Amino acid sequence: MELVVILIEPKYAGNAGAVARLMKNFGFHSLWLVSPKFSLDSEECIKYAMHAYDIIQKAKIFESFEEVVEKVDFMAGTSSIESRDDRRHLRKAMDVKEFGRGARKLDGTIGIAFGREDYGLLNEEIKKCDVLIKIPTSNEYPAMNLSHAVAIVLYELSYSPPTPYRELADGKEKEKLHEFISILLDSINYPGYKKEKAKILIRRIIGRAMISKWEFHTLMGIISKIIEQCKSNGFK
Amino acid sequence: MELVVILIEPKYAGNAGAVARLMKNFGFHSLWLVSPKFSLDSEECIKYAMHAYDIIQKAKIFESFEEVVEKVDFMAGTSSIESRDDRRHLRKAMDVKEFGRGARKLDGTIGIAFGREDYGLLNEEIKKCDVLIKIPTSNEYPAMNLSHAVAIVLYELSYSPPTPYRELADGKEKEKLHEFISILLDSINYPGYKKEKAKILIRRIIGRAMISKWEFHTLMGIISKIIEQCKSNGFK
Repeated sequence: MELVVILIEPKYAGNAGAVARLMKNFGFHSLWLVSPKFSLDSEECIKYAMHAYDIIQKAKIFESFEEVVEKVDFMAGTSSIESRDDRRHLRKAMDVKEFGRGARKLDGTIGIAFGREDYGLLNEEIKKCDVLIKIPTSNEYPAMNLSHAVAIVLYELSYSPPTPYRELADGKEKEKLHEFISILLDSINYPGYKKEKAKILIRRIIGRAMISKWEFHTLMGIISKIIEQCKSNGFK
Repeated sequence: MELVVILIEPKYAGNAGAVARLMKNFGFHSLWLVSPKFSLDSEECIKYAMHAYDIIQKAKIFESFEEVVEKVDFMAGTSSIESRDDRRHLRKAMDVKEFGRGARKLDGTIGIAFGREDYGLLNEEIKKCDVLIKIPTSNEYPAMNLSHAVAIVLYELSYSPPTPYRELADGKEKEKLHEFISILLDSINYPGYKKEKAKILIRRIIGRAMISKWEFHTLMGIISKIIEQCKSNGFK
């Protein structure tokens, strides 16, 4: 498992520095920033990074979330707002401990996206995540400071020794799978107004299951056959 | 268990504010400070406390560590420097996860003492603690920022297994789903010799994903439509 910490449009340089320090505390080294609102060589950033400024120096900067999604094999979003309604798939979240247990066993690149200090991740960004994770906090005041949320997630992800090996389907493969699922829904004339929701629901299921390459190929085979069958029907 | 967070001679007002916010995030409310080097109504403190400034307002101030030790039933110290030498008991520390498991069951007042930003706790203070706890960090850079260490400790102490946030599909429903998947594979003429393997593979994926009732119904709807479509094709 290779972990990439991704900060989406962070506002405060101190937070990027604090996150770099945390990453080194827990043995992680890849930091990506999407449109940071400050310069990485600002004093605040250096001050908070302490002995982890090398992580800031090696950090990569991107312009959009879309750009980073395809560069990782598995994208996890973080949110302090969770939906308890089973039908609202978008903001259904997995407990960080449960996520850590699964993620530590993965092979491939896992991105963990942390949203803006004030607004978090946008719905459009959350839609593109394979899974949404949450930290169990008090209802009295659930909104954590950015670097504190990073602390808990990295703590859970770094915990424990390496484990069994499964070669995971990578980001491209999973996008291919979701593309085929979309075609499949069309080919069975799944109602348009339900389609987007169904796609997100399936994305979450596939995300939680953390499918292997082998499973990916088998699913693609099955779906291709379904599409083929339905299409040949449609043509008659 | 009643928890008291105790900061020993903290230097930066921002840290006290950040700790107050974390405490409210995790449902704790008693903050004690021993000889803080700043005023509790400083701007930094208010800024970092955000909606948890009431915890700062109710915080108690003491002059010495000796004074607070006798006011709690159990005192835990925190340290980033641990002795690996079995004979040096003073700095032998307990893993924070293990400590959390035990502490949650305790009756009485537990104090968790966090040392100075630069020097941590002094040996004289550690001697007075009932236990020393540590956060497993990388050897490359074990020293955590004060509020990040507080984050991990409070997270572990407040942790309770997640309440089931999704009503899971039950055994009967899942068998129904697998039955439909089997019919689906037949209806697309999936090769017989591969069918059993495919069924097990899908069963594993659905198993790992732990699908909810809602997801079950949506999947059943999709699969029924596929079967219907494929069958109408087959009959021609």
